[in-house]
Amino acid sequence: MKSIGASKVSLSSITTEALWQQSGRYSANSELLRIKDRRESGFLLSPTHEEEITALVGSMVHSYKDLPLRLYQIGRKYRDERRPRGGLLRAKEFMMKDLYTFDSSPKSALETYESVREAYTNFFNELKLPYLVADADSGNMGGKLSHEYHFASPKGEDYIFSCNSCNYVANEELVEKKTDAAAPKIGDSLMFTGISVDKKTAINIHIPNSSAIGVDRVSWDGVSAFVNLHAVKKALPKDVEIDTGIETSTLSFLLSKTTNTVDIYDPTHPNAPSTSSMDITLTKPGDPCPRCSTGKLNIQKAIEVGHTFHLGTRYSVPLNAVIALPDQNLSSPIHMGCHGIGVSRIIGAVASLLSDAKGLNWPRVIAPYEAIILSDQKTNEADTSEVYDALYGEGRNSDVDIVLDDRAGKSLGWKLKDADLIGYPVVVVLGRGWKEKREVEIQCRRLGVKKYVELKLLRAEVLALLEQL
Amino acid sequence: MKSIGASKVSLSSITTEALWQQSGRYSANSELLRIKDRRESGFLLSPTHEEEITALVGSMVHSYKDLPLRLYQIGRKYRDERRPRGGLLRAKEFMMKDLYTFDSSPKSALETYESVREAYTNFFNELKLPYLVADADSGNMGGKLSHEYHFASPKGEDYIFSCNSCNYVANEELVEKKTDAAAPKIGDSLMFTGISVDKKTAINIHIPNSSAIGVDRVSWDGVSAFVNLHAVKKALPKDVEIDTGIETSTLSFLLSKTTNTVDIYDPTHPNAPSTSSMDITLTKPGDPCPRCSTGKLNIQKAIEVGHTFHLGTRYSVPLNAVIALPDQNLSSPIHMGCHGIGVSRIIGAVASLLSDAKGLNWPRVIAPYEAIILSDQKTNEADTSEVYDALYGEGRNSDVDIVLDDRAGKSLGWKLKDADLIGYPVVVVLGRGWKEKREVEIQCRRLGVKKYVELKLLRAEVLALLEQL
Repeated sequence: MKSIGASKVSLSSITTEALWQQSGRYSANSELLRIKDRRESGFLLSPTHEEEITALVGSMVHSYKDLPLRLYQIGRKYRDERRPRGGLLRAKEFMMKDLYTFDSSPKSALETYESVREAYTNFFNELKLPYLVADADSGNMGGKLSHEYHFASPKGEDYIFSCNSCNYVANEELVEKKTDAAAPKIGDSLMFTGISVDKKTAINIHIPNSSAIGVDRVSWDGVSAFVNLHAVKKALPKDVEIDTGIETSTLSFLLSKTTNTVDIYDPTHPNAPSTSSMDITLTKPGDPCPRCSTGKLNIQKAIEVGHTFHLGTRYSVPLNAVIALPDQNLSSPIHMGCHGIGVSRIIGAVASLLSDAKGLNWPRVIAPYEAIILSDQKTNEADTSEVYDALYGEGRNSDVDIVLDDRAGKSLGWKLKDADLIGYPVVVVLGRGWKEKREVEIQCRRLGVKKYVELKLLRAEVLALLEQL
Repeated sequence: MKSIGASKVSLSSITTEALWQQSGRYSANSELLRIKDRRESGFLLSPTHEEEITALVGSMVHSYKDLPLRLYQIGRKYRDERRPRGGLLRAKEFMMKDLYTFDSSPKSALETYESVREAYTNFFNELKLPYLVADADSGNMGGKLSHEYHFASPKGEDYIFSCNSCNYVANEELVEKKTDAAAPKIGDSLMFTGISVDKKTAINIHIPNSSAIGVDRVSWDGVSAFVNLHAVKKALPKDVEIDTGIETSTLSFLLSKTTNTVDIYDPTHPNAPSTSSMDITLTKPGDPCPRCSTGKLNIQKAIEVGHTFHLGTRYSVPLNAVIALPDQNLSSPIHMGCHGIGVSRIIGAVASLLSDAKGLNWPRVIAPYEAIILSDQKTNEADTSEVYDALYGEGRNSDVDIVLDDRAGKSLGWKLKDADLIGYPVVVVLGRGWKEKREVEIQCRRLGVKKYVELKLLRAEVLALLEQL
């Protein structure tokens, strides 16, 4: 956050219903935890802070001269999760780093977006764990440009498609596949009928019945198991927006009132007009990559740990965050972005990825300490200090962050087990080797290292291990 | 917190109704903000964390060998305040440092209590602002030994009595006064009738009618304007506990069912038996100090900013936090303490105490920076760096925390106003004096200092000012 000139703030977790009604997010969000105070006034626990920060900045920033502005916080967020699970992975209360960016033009907002992506990439690189960056839909955040950062993990709840040949990565909502225009049309037909947001237009979605499910008209409920609704959105005429949240129970009544009909065909549908080019069926593992000529798509379960959104004026317009522009008499809503890293979720995800039967295991940059020194009760303090000093190195500030387990009344074996449980990246032991020939043992469970070294080599050996962690 | 070996933890703000029902604090507390999740399960936002931490420690600590244990956190707390006011002084959401202590015996718990008091005293001393430490009632926290830390302030909502001669300080609930046993009995009589917690005993409280309010039997509602209920508690027989929270509307019905009556007399009441020695009337400014022979009591409005409580086994018993003792086959509930400092309230209190028409003013230890260096746009960078280096001093780590206002496009006058507004303890200006004879101006609004010094004296002068702030 420092690298992109962001300033730290701390907003309240309790916010008002009124502010969320103004932004239009109040009624839509079933994950809000709501509170009434003793006067029966409506409050809620913020799941994110776009409303609060936009109102705050809008009240203080009135000119392009005060922009760009980048504000972040690290704090608790609250969501009434449908399925709380996995401890820190998905909880009602969690810790998030959230950044909000404010620019005076779309161009500078997009430059800001790229700076944030670079900072996030640097951050995730430092963890030295494989991660995926997926093109992502912006969900109900209201923007159009967005990326997700994922750790591939069987404990994940998201599905990420990636090409086995090029660097194409996308989440399941946004993933596309290459359509073979010359492919033979598949005979059987399947139709879903949806409705537009303004309830004026019925939308018939036609795909080939490759699953041979034995009916030709399928309830709207099942649409997402067969159709890529994101592709349908793109395939529809500009003035028709599909209502993806409608419930089947109200749909048939609403359809009887529509005045227009639009038909959308998958290009492999037998009746597809020659103008149909948007592939609207679901992507499956093994489908051809839409970017390169030879790649096939893989699917992985993943844990989302970061997200960048370009918001544009989604919040600045309803919350009236407006600035004067250099051209006299002109003003503009502020162009915003919001960007999050799931702090407590990273802890949970890393724990699930790197732990083994002996305990946790932490990447160097988020470990409680990079190295721990252990000795038994019979080792004298001067010896332990000598090892500590050798690892610490010359100068006032060491580049190794060390802790010494000098707890009384605990055996060396107990301390070793405890160090493994906590998951220090490197464990340094004054054991038998020390008594016999003044050699210390270096253990690194993650890299499978366990060896004795002379004291004068200790520091270099530990630093070489830490470089890889 | 480090000085007393406390470890930092971070507990969730959302807790369950069930835990608070187990401790017995759920129904009593009208300041709880309550939440229902999508399954209609009952949660609440923790106003303090005794329940959570006792349950946590009770589940992990099982032997006296693991004690003493001291755990603290710095985080948000939530209260449905009757009267939110004064910005950070009293809000639904606030920042608190809360410490919980766990000991294996009453003796070691009391030693811990004294260590915490010493650490708190050191902390408040560092702010270099006058504060009061009052003997305090422990309210609904359930303990018996407790102290409050207050800043005297007209914006306060608490009343603190202090002796003008000795060091006696107490809050309005606990304050006592010297009773002149030889004083003439005052003729007129006033009686209040309350009830015991078990609803079996009517309690008649008799005081002299020194206010001459013209009636002799007064509604229970008005009792706290005339009677020191804390003293009444002490004066009652051991097996009778007065219900101070009862409402007048239900009292007369309940009194008709009582089977016993107890009479409590103030010693100055005309009918007081010679055994009455507990002064139960309210203390007023000017009353004689109960501790020394000559002092009179003053009253001040004050802002409570810290609190220490000895809890004993108030929470460990209902929440079953029990340890094995050294004597074989013996076990004991853990002896606890809880101790808080109102972090955001200190910010608000200091702001209200030290601010003036020009802006805020911060004690050195909580200032954003200890000193700011200002120059106009024509001053070259080498000059500003020379001043910065002179103030920073030799060596890698300076004992002055400096910020340089190098914002472009802002005049020296604008920067001065902004520095006053923010309230840096010391402001160093490269102004006219610098151009004419290379002297810098040192400003300290709080101490009324504004003077020019040669560069070689700058560091010593600033350090001397900071010593006082």
